[in-house]
Amino acid sequence: MLVPATNSELNFTSELHIPAANKPRIVIIGGGFAGLELSKKLRSVDAQIVMIDRYNFHTFQPLLYQVATAGLEADAIAGPLRKVLKSGNSKSDFYFRVATVREIQYDKNTVATNLGMLRYDYLVIANGSKTNFYGNKSIEEQAFALKQVPQALAIRNHLLKNFEKAQLAETIEEQQSLMNVVIVGGGPTGVEVAGALGELKLHVLPKDYPELDFRRMQIHLVEAGNRLLNGMTDNAGKKAEEYLKDFTVQIWKEVSVKAFDGSHVELSNGMTLPSTTLVWAAGVTGNLIKGLPAEAILQGNRIIVDEYNRVKGIENIFALGDIAAMVSEEHPKGFPMLAPVAMQQGKTLGDNLKRMLNKKEMKPFKYFDKGSMATVGRNRAVVDLPNKMSFQGFFAWFVWLFVHLMFIIGFKNRFIILTSWVWNYFTYDHSNRLIIPTQIKSKKEKEELYV
Amino acid sequence: MLVPATNSELNFTSELHIPAANKPRIVIIGGGFAGLELSKKLRSVDAQIVMIDRYNFHTFQPLLYQVATAGLEADAIAGPLRKVLKSGNSKSDFYFRVATVREIQYDKNTVATNLGMLRYDYLVIANGSKTNFYGNKSIEEQAFALKQVPQALAIRNHLLKNFEKAQLAETIEEQQSLMNVVIVGGGPTGVEVAGALGELKLHVLPKDYPELDFRRMQIHLVEAGNRLLNGMTDNAGKKAEEYLKDFTVQIWKEVSVKAFDGSHVELSNGMTLPSTTLVWAAGVTGNLIKGLPAEAILQGNRIIVDEYNRVKGIENIFALGDIAAMVSEEHPKGFPMLAPVAMQQGKTLGDNLKRMLNKKEMKPFKYFDKGSMATVGRNRAVVDLPNKMSFQGFFAWFVWLFVHLMFIIGFKNRFIILTSWVWNYFTYDHSNRLIIPTQIKSKKEKEELYV
Repeated sequence: MLVPATNSELNFTSELHIPAANKPRIVIIGGGFAGLELSKKLRSVDAQIVMIDRYNFHTFQPLLYQVATAGLEADAIAGPLRKVLKSGNSKSDFYFRVATVREIQYDKNTVATNLGMLRYDYLVIANGSKTNFYGNKSIEEQAFALKQVPQALAIRNHLLKNFEKAQLAETIEEQQSLMNVVIVGGGPTGVEVAGALGELKLHVLPKDYPELDFRRMQIHLVEAGNRLLNGMTDNAGKKAEEYLKDFTVQIWKEVSVKAFDGSHVELSNGMTLPSTTLVWAAGVTGNLIKGLPAEAILQGNRIIVDEYNRVKGIENIFALGDIAAMVSEEHPKGFPMLAPVAMQQGKTLGDNLKRMLNKKEMKPFKYFDKGSMATVGRNRAVVDLPNKMSFQGFFAWFVWLFVHLMFIIGFKNRFIILTSWVWNYFTYDHSNRLIIPTQIKSKKEKEELYV
Repeated sequence: MLVPATNSELNFTSELHIPAANKPRIVIIGGGFAGLELSKKLRSVDAQIVMIDRYNFHTFQPLLYQVATAGLEADAIAGPLRKVLKSGNSKSDFYFRVATVREIQYDKNTVATNLGMLRYDYLVIANGSKTNFYGNKSIEEQAFALKQVPQALAIRNHLLKNFEKAQLAETIEEQQSLMNVVIVGGGPTGVEVAGALGELKLHVLPKDYPELDFRRMQIHLVEAGNRLLNGMTDNAGKKAEEYLKDFTVQIWKEVSVKAFDGSHVELSNGMTLPSTTLVWAAGVTGNLIKGLPAEAILQGNRIIVDEYNRVKGIENIFALGDIAAMVSEEHPKGFPMLAPVAMQQGKTLGDNLKRMLNKKEMKPFKYFDKGSMATVGRNRAVVDLPNKMSFQGFFAWFVWLFVHLMFIIGFKNRFIILTSWVWNYFTYDHSNRLIIPTQIKSKKEKEELYV
């Protein structure tokens, strides 16, 4: 598990410093979509709210791929959590800690964090999902995931360094292996990364690197199933394939990755693709914290919750979003791991906690499906409406832009992203193509870096 | 010397890959203000131009302090060098390499880089200056410099982490040492950092950290001389002091730093300031590359050049900007190490190289002093005009903003910076207060990080 450098140098103290208060304490693990919507609702509650996150910012994950492909600055898709939590008139006491939770001791109403123990009256687990490498350690070590800002920046630096190196390559094979990118997983992330790379290949990189022949750069999208965008309509999947081909992406369906040694990707169909870059978007798994009873855990490390998002068998623990599986007859595996589910569950739980603290009855969660969408590149996106109607092309792309702009946190970020998009659209220029190395001041800091 | 991770993993090959061409090759070391202006001028020259820089981007150094204090995103003050070099109709062949030069072998017309040897017909040394720690190794290891983007981001992360930790401190002394900042050097950088921190202390941080008492946060500015902004008028220095006091900055004149152990700063006046953050802006020294004859080197590691920026005693090597000392009776130590000098020398040398290649006579450099300025914080700046007239306050601050916006590279950056400034001004909000750790994928990458 990733441990942020931020706090690992602190001593493990017996107690996390939060002042005791004469009101119930609600501890929220995670400042993602679910945790954020929940905490906004809890502003009007007479309770002590403690939020814990490994970062001091909320990440707008749907745009991470644009950071990885030099289209947006990282800061524009991140919102400082302290600021979000403090804004608005707040009746409740809010506390925030940059920390990681190591264990839940539900029999003691306590969580163990890297900063010490923390008692709760109510606990909300909203720490999302992480990339699933299905136990393949060598791939996990060599491949890039794309769930967090540091990962997106690592991809950006790696890609751009590779083109610098490709100019110096001694052989064509070495050069190709530096220029090629293999993306695993034909879901929205895989499709969006592949499309953005295709745009870079066609419109941006040849201007930057006139010494390189970009016809040699191959972008491969590898999908184990027989179609792309599996959660969406057939139409959407087919259109996405068509669009990706416009951007010269090579699509391999019913193929999986067997091995990756850092310079070659071995596929299940016997092919070997020379590439130093493997982006792994082939699946996620719940970011499970140890300590919960085994009967509350579903396959895929998700926590079984009832229709009030209450963890199976534990009265005062709730789980939200990707980590929660609200199992029903209609949804035997729970709802899909999507931002709208997380946001809606966060809001509903906020209202329910208010009701509960006021000794009123809670209301069951109802998912309002707003449809889904994915973008491939300029003027090309696919949108499914909840009624299974779907549309594609320029208008879909425009809707995608608009919806994402509306949901990003912070007025300033919205403005900066809009500026960047307009700029990139008209100039075919991605001006964030910067290789920014890290400065590490001390040996101690170096040792604390997580791999 | 800092070695970027970018290329250090490449083998040291015998030859840097640049195609041979049947025209003179001009090698430029450094893509700073001087190198950039020079290369723009050389667009219309029938020559092969090779630029080498440790980063793939130009850094707009005058705004680095705003990145360090969470006012601007790093990407907004950086311009990808490949893009800048390629734009415009170019008659010349441009090549760019992310590399560091290790030695100049002027008798062989060759530079040794970490990527291999490179032959030149004309060499331009424009690699600027670096922070001068005056040989104090322990301060160099512990203190923060502010000359490069990674350094600015390191300061931002460090400061914000410190406030997170301060909430957990066991003692008041520990807490203060985490909250305090000591800045050494009363020049423009020191004054600007101190002012920006004062603004954060008064207007931004107390909202983020209601658990901390910001009256306890001390910002100390330590200056060895008897005044601030030594290169500017008396008026400017006095006014800067006054403004800094508005922002609760404590100023120590005729005092120097004796030692820093990472948590306490020992001053020459016998005082010890508890602080884990020491920002060192007390001086710079030329970023000298070995190999030049000793008689061409002045005190402060600057290279002695004639009025054509030609290195003393070497016909085909030039030096520009901070690294160059154009010694004259009027300027026995050369011109001040300022961006306008670098830019003007770059332009003049560009014209002179054109003249030289066309077998015309070169023209001596003439410095056009446009005055100088520094900003302390909102509505507060000092401006000296070339005629030693000076003005301060809101209008000076507005002029400062305007001039910096005009000189930043790239329309998009200009727009994003303007947005950020307007936003920060009216909301008292610095939304870039993000602690973004680095993701390091491999052990190899970890070993390559520079300290």
